Amino acid sequence: MSVTATREDKIIKLGELIKDIDFAMLSTQESDATLRSRAMPTQKAALDGTLRLFTAANTPKVEEIERDHQVNLSYAKPGNQSFVSISGTARLVRDKQKMEELWNPILKAWFPQGLEDPQLALLKVTVEQAEYWDSPDS
Amino acid sequence: MSVTATREDKIIKLGELIKDIDFAMLSTQESDATLRSRAMPTQKAALDGTLRLFTAANTPKVEEIERDHQVNLSYAKPGNQSFVSISGTARLVRDKQKMEELWNPILKAWFPQGLEDPQLALLKVTVEQAEYWDSPDS
Repeated sequence: MSVTATREDKIIKLGELIKDIDFAMLSTQESDATLRSRAMPTQKAALDGTLRLFTAANTPKVEEIERDHQVNLSYAKPGNQSFVSISGTARLVRDKQKMEELWNPILKAWFPQGLEDPQLALLKVTVEQAEYWDSPDS
Repeated sequence: MSVTATREDKIIKLGELIKDIDFAMLSTQESDATLRSRAMPTQKAALDGTLRLFTAANTPKVEEIERDHQVNLSYAKPGNQSFVSISGTARLVRDKQKMEELWNPILKAWFPQGLEDPQLALLKVTVEQAEYWDSPDS
């Protein structure tokens, strides 16, 4: 089943589909037009139309996002053929309070210094368009 | 581990990483700059620097690719934290001989008419850049 979801009416369904997927692939466009992806640990809090992903501020992907705010997040659960594509705009935020709220110990694998890491930041993605493909029995 | 791979020297490793991943997420950019992704059944033949994915010729993604040949294919095997990003250029080909060579019965789920489907085509992706993230014990 393929469904093109508007921002409001499908947000709950989207949240259900992605809530137990631990990684999303974040796609951005480089200045030479190349499209790149990389894995990102996903947000564990409920989806409310904005996604916040932990990132290091000093990485090439952040430079790419500063040039071009368009991003895509794809979520795959191949076992039951469930896939989500989220299109949106991203910007880097250093919201200490939000980071404390969203931090979970699993993230230690990527950010061993945890909330004390001076490069720790959030990539705030405003969901503009989302699509999902879900097998009927999932 | 993150490795930036050149086209030649990492193609075997890439092939190993993606060979048992059944779906890739194909990202393209729309005319309004939005980045979109959708799941595609992957090529089962060995990787040789070119990927050929079965597609229906009459779909929006093909229109997007005709406008902008840049694509990204992301492969995720979350269980062992293995992820691949392939950047390249894509074009639609209707190579009957190649389709016969690459066809496998699993594709019937998407293309019930099989090789007789008049809309069946291949998306030929020339790999230009690839990156992978692989857990040390996979």
